[in-house]
Amino acid sequence: MVRGVVDGGAPRIDAARLLSRLEELGRIGDTQDGGCSRLALSDEDRQGRDLVVTWMRDLDLDVSIDKIGNVVAVLPGREDGPPVMCGSHIDTVATGGIYDGNLGVLGGLEVLETIVTEGITPHRAMAVAFFTDEEGARFAPVMLGSLVYAGGMSVEDAYDLVGIDGARLGEELKRIGYLGAAPCPGLAPHAYVEMHIEQGPVLESHGDMIGAVTGVQGISWQELVLTGQLNHAGTTPMAYRHDAGFAAAAIAVAARDIATGLGGDQVATVGKCDLGPDLVNVVAGKAALTLDLRNTDGLVLADAERQIAEAVDQIATKEGISVARRQLARFKPVDFDARVVDLVESTARAHGYRVRRLPSGAGHDAQMLSRLCPAGMVFVPSRAGISHNPAEFTTPEQIEAGANVLLDVMLGLAEDDL
Amino acid sequence: MVRGVVDGGAPRIDAARLLSRLEELGRIGDTQDGGCSRLALSDEDRQGRDLVVTWMRDLDLDVSIDKIGNVVAVLPGREDGPPVMCGSHIDTVATGGIYDGNLGVLGGLEVLETIVTEGITPHRAMAVAFFTDEEGARFAPVMLGSLVYAGGMSVEDAYDLVGIDGARLGEELKRIGYLGAAPCPGLAPHAYVEMHIEQGPVLESHGDMIGAVTGVQGISWQELVLTGQLNHAGTTPMAYRHDAGFAAAAIAVAARDIATGLGGDQVATVGKCDLGPDLVNVVAGKAALTLDLRNTDGLVLADAERQIAEAVDQIATKEGISVARRQLARFKPVDFDARVVDLVESTARAHGYRVRRLPSGAGHDAQMLSRLCPAGMVFVPSRAGISHNPAEFTTPEQIEAGANVLLDVMLGLAEDDL
Repeated sequence: MVRGVVDGGAPRIDAARLLSRLEELGRIGDTQDGGCSRLALSDEDRQGRDLVVTWMRDLDLDVSIDKIGNVVAVLPGREDGPPVMCGSHIDTVATGGIYDGNLGVLGGLEVLETIVTEGITPHRAMAVAFFTDEEGARFAPVMLGSLVYAGGMSVEDAYDLVGIDGARLGEELKRIGYLGAAPCPGLAPHAYVEMHIEQGPVLESHGDMIGAVTGVQGISWQELVLTGQLNHAGTTPMAYRHDAGFAAAAIAVAARDIATGLGGDQVATVGKCDLGPDLVNVVAGKAALTLDLRNTDGLVLADAERQIAEAVDQIATKEGISVARRQLARFKPVDFDARVVDLVESTARAHGYRVRRLPSGAGHDAQMLSRLCPAGMVFVPSRAGISHNPAEFTTPEQIEAGANVLLDVMLGLAEDDL
Repeated sequence: MVRGVVDGGAPRIDAARLLSRLEELGRIGDTQDGGCSRLALSDEDRQGRDLVVTWMRDLDLDVSIDKIGNVVAVLPGREDGPPVMCGSHIDTVATGGIYDGNLGVLGGLEVLETIVTEGITPHRAMAVAFFTDEEGARFAPVMLGSLVYAGGMSVEDAYDLVGIDGARLGEELKRIGYLGAAPCPGLAPHAYVEMHIEQGPVLESHGDMIGAVTGVQGISWQELVLTGQLNHAGTTPMAYRHDAGFAAAAIAVAARDIATGLGGDQVATVGKCDLGPDLVNVVAGKAALTLDLRNTDGLVLADAERQIAEAVDQIATKEGISVARRQLARFKPVDFDARVVDLVESTARAHGYRVRRLPSGAGHDAQMLSRLCPAGMVFVPSRAGISHNPAEFTTPEQIEAGANVLLDVMLGLAEDDL
């Protein structure tokens, strides 16, 4: 079917329209440096939502809002039944770029608009969705809206979440007018495909246009709070020290060594480290650091956790400090549906694009939807691997390629037996 | 002479009076947890100064205030000429204890009161001083008042210093009523002796009562700002990273290794380290850390600086990050006058106290005064080496011992030829 569509006269998305919408949406929360700040359920998020919903309604799509503020716009098919869904999120981190989730939502809208414009009525219904608070930058956890959609958290528990600014999620949802009536968990789609920027350097560095995403890495987040002995940096001989700052540094170095030693997809990051009192002439009495470990292989991820826990114990014992551990997040690796991954790959090849199968290092709404239905993702390259940053950039050609692949994958899923 | 004084009927300080004054002064800026916060030139500093000046005037001492707010109280001797001076400072860090500089000032006052009460008129004049802003906690640099007293900075430059709260030093000095008329640089004393808590663990761990301080370690403070590449912690494979946070950790570990390898008095501390953006799932693009290196041996200190600079370069090259360096402070090691050091040691022995010659790891006003006259210090133990902390503690017996040693050293210097 896909090849048939690609052959002469096959529908193609309108790249200029898609780019223009990306730019228009990016102006809401414009940070004046090429970036975008639209924290979930903020006034800017409301403006962004209103704009996207307007575009959805302009296409006569059937728009519904659910109890956690997820928005689903459906294009009916020739038959009743669950839609083939695409989508992503439109909230951003405070220092976000204009691509990220927006590309998946507006790319999906572009796919539906192309189908409508071409006069195609697909066998199955099609839908584009945006999920609430994917970033978790204002309200933790990440991927909240799709988690609730997939039944992983109750609406009531979600309403009680408190944001970094002290706001309650339920009240903010109401305040911005996006506390809808559709039930959660939501209906299982027939399949779900999400287009997204890679947010990493792999596609660009290999000269690939499209990533057929095989799954999402498992994630282990821990916070370690180290308590040593605050001391004067001048008067405390090295042998007398219980330096929480040194121990934190030694843990960061050990984490690098362990991840490099395990190889493969294993990554380990100490991205946050706060010393107390954090003064030039004081041996730190406290250090709070985070460990972010990820791997597509759950067994290796567990091995990394074990090795690092051992290293932390050894460092703590040697330095004479105590360690308090807290698990902040733990997601098992997700494997996307092999048929969807294959379809993404073959569709990209049929378009003549260089395509690479690769795992996602970041979490995405698609991993929550994969609890409900066959799911997969289409990655397009990120320049220099940069994301969550005003410098985030994907070329117009890459965006066009990704959206055309998404279009044909959606059409394939809407017609085929999968 | 010293032995003569110690023998039968020799004067002794009044420990109860000294402790009572320490407690009374400690109540100004009381942090309710045993600690004290009297930042330089704050309202609390003014109240503390007023109290100490009242005690000085109650003794009929000749009190003068100089243009940087240093206060000197003189007890005339049988002959004219420069006084034998003792003293320290009464400003504290925000999380200070009640001992620190206060002990040297009130201990010195107690020495003078003992001499007055005993009806002794020493050969040379005697003085007790407190110097402005020794801590540098509100206005950098540290040891400011004694630096200006010794001619190391002009009064005008000092007035223009801006504090952490944006206040100008000159205006704050005026506001609290301590912009005096006495000129800076000040008159060179005949000699200067400062009693101080050790602020380190050496005396306590060896069971010594008194430290005869041989000098002050040389200090090298640098700030390193590392610039790498901010990246997503999940999507950036280890081999693609330019992680400023990892590089900072590797530098902290290298600094520990180098200091331990050099041995002796060498210490190295990374007490301050701030990552940017400091988020669990972001590979840090920035890291600002400080390096505090100290040694009594200037050549070894320079070697430590060289070794660490090489390590920083290697780490930066390997990680692909850039480094901006800024020297924050650089003081050469100070050797106290051998005659004063010997006098402190022999006086303590004559009292029957266990005494240890040791260098000071912290900076003290005595090192500035040593530019003008023979200088030395009397250390008393710090419990567990803790200082700049509400838990700072020295026992009443240790305080009494230190003040009696100071008394006899002052009397010795006032009578002898030194």
